[in-house]
Amino acid sequence: MENEETKTVPKSWAMVGGDGPRSYAQNSSYQRGLLDVANELMNEGIKDKLDFKIPCSDSSNICTFRIADFGCSVGPNTFFAVEKIIEAVEQKYQACQFQNSPPLEFQVFFNDVTANDFNTLFKTLPSYRKYFAAGVPGTFYGRLFPKSTLHLAYSSYSLHWLSKVPQEVVDTKSPAWNKGSIQCSGTAKEVAKAYSAQFKTDMDNFLNARAQEIIGGGLMVIIIAGLPDGILVSQTVAGIFNDFFGSCLVDMAKLVSIVFNFSRDINGLQKANTGIIVIVKLAGWHQLGTTCPLPLGHLATCLAPLSFAWMLAYK
Amino acid sequence: MENEETKTVPKSWAMVGGDGPRSYAQNSSYQRGLLDVANELMNEGIKDKLDFKIPCSDSSNICTFRIADFGCSVGPNTFFAVEKIIEAVEQKYQACQFQNSPPLEFQVFFNDVTANDFNTLFKTLPSYRKYFAAGVPGTFYGRLFPKSTLHLAYSSYSLHWLSKVPQEVVDTKSPAWNKGSIQCSGTAKEVAKAYSAQFKTDMDNFLNARAQEIIGGGLMVIIIAGLPDGILVSQTVAGIFNDFFGSCLVDMAKLVSIVFNFSRDINGLQKANTGIIVIVKLAGWHQLGTTCPLPLGHLATCLAPLSFAWMLAYK
Repeated sequence: MENEETKTVPKSWAMVGGDGPRSYAQNSSYQRGLLDVANELMNEGIKDKLDFKIPCSDSSNICTFRIADFGCSVGPNTFFAVEKIIEAVEQKYQACQFQNSPPLEFQVFFNDVTANDFNTLFKTLPSYRKYFAAGVPGTFYGRLFPKSTLHLAYSSYSLHWLSKVPQEVVDTKSPAWNKGSIQCSGTAKEVAKAYSAQFKTDMDNFLNARAQEIIGGGLMVIIIAGLPDGILVSQTVAGIFNDFFGSCLVDMAKLVSIVFNFSRDINGLQKANTGIIVIVKLAGWHQLGTTCPLPLGHLATCLAPLSFAWMLAYK
Repeated sequence: MENEETKTVPKSWAMVGGDGPRSYAQNSSYQRGLLDVANELMNEGIKDKLDFKIPCSDSSNICTFRIADFGCSVGPNTFFAVEKIIEAVEQKYQACQFQNSPPLEFQVFFNDVTANDFNTLFKTLPSYRKYFAAGVPGTFYGRLFPKSTLHLAYSSYSLHWLSKVPQEVVDTKSPAWNKGSIQCSGTAKEVAKAYSAQFKTDMDNFLNARAQEIIGGGLMVIIIAGLPDGILVSQTVAGIFNDFFGSCLVDMAKLVSIVFNFSRDINGLQKANTGIIVIVKLAGWHQLGTTCPLPLGHLATCLAPLSFAWMLAYK
C-alpha cells in the first residue's frame, strides 16, 4: 500500500524510546500542557459536529468508533489525549439518548514512524483502558488505513517534522544553502522558500491521505506549532535556543537529521483542499508568562512559537 | 476492555525477539513448513465459504477485508501466511466477477502478547505489501477487537501455549504434582487432567472472544499440534527431546515458564460452541519421513506430534 510519497521518504527518525531520563516519555510535559489547552476545542467540536449515525450506520446494531493518533510517539501524552477524546465522545453519545442504543466500542490506532518504540508504547498502555488498542507503523505522509474507516483523527505536535530536509538547504552551491544551520530562521528568503515548499508538499500528502481514510462526517484535530505574520523564528524561544546551541546540535545530529518547520503556510493548504475538508474551528495562543504550560518566566520577554489547534470536519 | 480471563493471566512470555541466531525469526522453519501443508485447506475454505457480501455490505461502495493473526510472533512466517490468505481471497474475489466491483482493501492485524518484539515485527514488514498493517498487543485468551469487525482469523502453532501453568502441577503436595517436569507426558493421569482442564478453559476463552470479534459469515483457520488417541507425548519426537534435555530446560526456564500442551481435547470444546461455530474442515497429518517438513529422517521411528489444521465458519 505504499505510494509515491512514501517511497520518497529517505529515512524516518523517531523520538527517543524507552522510559529513561532522555526518553520522550520523560521529556514531553510541554506537549502535555498543549493538550490541556486544546481540550476545550476538541470537546466543542465533538459536541457540535459529531454524528452518531456514522459509526452505527449498519443494520447490525453494533457501533465501533475508530480513533487514530498520528505521530503518537511512546506516551503518556497520547494516552491522555485518547482518554479525553473518548470522554467527549461518550458524553455526546449519552446526551443523544438514542432509543435502543447499541453499546459503543472504541478502537484506537497509535501511529508513528516504523522506528518508533512501539514495544514501550504497548507495555505502558493503561491497564484498564476503555478501548481496543493497535499500533500502526509508517509515515503519516502516506496512506496508513483503508478507505473511510476512521471517525476521529488526531495529531499533536507532529506535523512540524517534515518528511525530509529540502535538498537545497544542504547544498553549498544552492542560493538556498542554510550555511549548516539546523533551523529556518526566516531571515534568508531562499531558505524559507525551500522549507515552505517542503511543508506544502508534506501537508498536502497528509491531508490527501486522511481525506481518504476518514469517514464522511468524521473529524480531525491538529495541534501544531506556528508563527504569526511578521514574527521570525529567530525571535522565539526556540530560535534563541537554537542560535545558542545550534552548532552543538549539528554535531550531535550530523547536520541532516533535523527536519523541522514552524508552519505559517497552513491556510494556503486548506484552500487547496476545500473540496474535501471544512475547517470548523481554529484557535491559536501565545505561550507567555502565566498562560504558558511551561515554566518560561525567565524567558517571558521572548515569544514562544504560537501553537494552533485545528478541528476539521470531513464531508 | 480487559475481562476476567485476561486479568487472571499472571505474566506473558513471548518468543525470542530480534533477528539474532537464537531468535524466533531465525528458528521457525518448522512452523513455516506447516503453513505450506495447511495452505491447500485454507484455499479450499476461502473458495467454498467466503461471502463477499460481508466486507462490502454497506452502501458506500468500499470494501475493507480485515485479517488477524493471533500469536504472530515476529515473522517471517506470519507474513507468508498473510500473503497466502490475501492471494486466496483475491482469487475468489476475481472469480466472482461482481458488476462494478469496488476495490478490495486489506487491513491486517498482527497480534501477540505485549512482551512480543513488535519493533522487529514492524521493521521487517514486507516493503511492497498489499495491505495496511497494524500490531495488536495482548493475550488472545481475551477480547482484542471490537465486535464483528474481523473477516478472517488465523492462528498457527500458538494455541498450545496455555495462559498459565496449572497450579496443581507445581504444587508438591498435590496429587497432580509433575515432579519438576516441563511437560505433560501423559503417563500421570492427574497431571494430564490438570493440563487438560487448563486447555479447556483457555480454548473456551479464545473461541468465545473470537466469536464476538469475527463477523457473521467470517472464517477462522487454526493450525495446532495434537495427538491421536492412544499416543503419549513421551512417544513423540518432542517428548523424547524433553526427556533428554528436560532438566537443562528446567534450569533455563526456572521451572514455571514452560506452559505447553499438546491438545487432544479440541473436539469437546467444539461441541460446547455449536451455537456459534461450525467446523467445515478438519485435517490432520503425521510428520514422518518424507512427508515431514523438517529433516527428521534420523528420528523417523518416532512419531512427531500430529498437526491439525482447522477451518471454522462463523454463523
